[in-house]
Amino acid sequence: MKEIGYYNGKIGPLDEMTVPMNDRAVYFGDGIYEATGVLNKRAFALDDHFDRMYKNLELIMIEPPMDREALRKEINDFLALLEDDDSYQLYWQVSRGTAARNHRFPMGAGSNLMMTVRPKPLYDVTKEMKLITMEDTRFYHCNIKTINLIPAVIASQKAYEAGCDEVVFHRGDVVTECAHSNIHMLKDGKFITHPLDNFILPGITRKHLLKMCEQAGIPIEERIFTLDELMEADELIVTASSVPCARVSEVNGKPIAKRDGATVKLLQDTYLKYYYENTSK
Amino acid sequence: MKEIGYYNGKIGPLDEMTVPMNDRAVYFGDGIYEATGVLNKRAFALDDHFDRMYKNLELIMIEPPMDREALRKEINDFLALLEDDDSYQLYWQVSRGTAARNHRFPMGAGSNLMMTVRPKPLYDVTKEMKLITMEDTRFYHCNIKTINLIPAVIASQKAYEAGCDEVVFHRGDVVTECAHSNIHMLKDGKFITHPLDNFILPGITRKHLLKMCEQAGIPIEERIFTLDELMEADELIVTASSVPCARVSEVNGKPIAKRDGATVKLLQDTYLKYYYENTSK
Repeated sequence: MKEIGYYNGKIGPLDEMTVPMNDRAVYFGDGIYEATGVLNKRAFALDDHFDRMYKNLELIMIEPPMDREALRKEINDFLALLEDDDSYQLYWQVSRGTAARNHRFPMGAGSNLMMTVRPKPLYDVTKEMKLITMEDTRFYHCNIKTINLIPAVIASQKAYEAGCDEVVFHRGDVVTECAHSNIHMLKDGKFITHPLDNFILPGITRKHLLKMCEQAGIPIEERIFTLDELMEADELIVTASSVPCARVSEVNGKPIAKRDGATVKLLQDTYLKYYYENTSK
Repeated sequence: MKEIGYYNGKIGPLDEMTVPMNDRAVYFGDGIYEATGVLNKRAFALDDHFDRMYKNLELIMIEPPMDREALRKEINDFLALLEDDDSYQLYWQVSRGTAARNHRFPMGAGSNLMMTVRPKPLYDVTKEMKLITMEDTRFYHCNIKTINLIPAVIASQKAYEAGCDEVVFHRGDVVTECAHSNIHMLKDGKFITHPLDNFILPGITRKHLLKMCEQAGIPIEERIFTLDELMEADELIVTASSVPCARVSEVNGKPIAKRDGATVKLLQDTYLKYYYENTSK
């Protein structure tokens, strides 16, 4: 099978899988998720994703479906079903159990674990991204990776209709992140990125990239930056679990300077090396 | 059957019903919903709910699953399955189709119609409500009745844990609405309610109540009001589809004056009369 689904231990072809109508994901979007690359049947950076996932569950008070080691085994057993060693994306979500619809938490409903795995290559970093900007109208819990994603859906559609790859959200003048990625600037040799607060997701790729900047001696500034600064950046970099380190060519049809290709290339190469080392047989 | 589920024409006992794992409601909360009271197998104010629902679908660009008259027939056929004429709640949601997970809209996926019906009496208006207040951290699309409801879920749980019935949301000093209701004040004989903007849901009960105020000669002010004004109100009234017109006794443990019981009673009686007239055999 190339596309497989999992629901509380039940496994089958993704397009034949179902979930109960009373799963709170269905009518409240009441759950959180994670996604990561898979190569050679190995999920990349599982521990980082577990750190975030268990923290998110605590933040929105959903009971973990199982402990870390049990989940690791469940995921590895699931990935062992893949028919080849190609690139896939593993997605998993945890919802606040199955119960008749009622806003407050259901008593003793536990949680539901759903997983999917589908073919998906990493984003090709030789391809530059075009972005548009849009006011960030999302809620104030963007640090939690929830499945309440309508604003990200609408924004992504707008980007697509504009012939672009992603949307840069901003709250007033302040740049936050993209619809389903983080965004960073290079300026005068420094790597500048929005600080971890409730306006952005603490991206795993962002975290790895910051470590790589440190190791390469690139100064880091975790600080708020504005739309004007964005447009004046030497380079813009977009990251997500499936987007290692994408260079940006334009925003709203205006070219970005692209004055520091060497640093972009260094980060891309370092990241991809790390990725392949950690997903090798 | 007392609890029935419906999914794109398929019908069964609610707790046995399922939806595809790839329904976009499941992993993006990508859908809208409506809910209304049912008595004598008749859904209350269906046309008002249809008006809002088709407008919402347009606002978030989801294709309607069928036209208004076809949907009316589908709902009435569904309610005809009820085994008695008791009070029920009809819930229906429309999601942006079934497709492999990808933020932008799926091509040609149409939409999915899901319905449930379960026993539920109207809120007993002889019971007064206790409220707590909480900063409104939701997104800026609260005019659309989406299933992205985590903040409402968390708030409702906080109210429950505080021994209260609902949460009053406020953005800074400005009162918006409750977690799953609208809120209104009576002050010096006037009915004061937050104007229709992107911070509150255009409640159907709110709409009916405004009409009843007009007919009864009660002056209406649709305007922003503050937390201080809320605490100084003569009366506070909470409305939702299952909450005709509930009187509020206290907010954050502090008593509300309750200086205009006559008007509250008038509105409750007028509303319930209207409700029963429009759900009679």
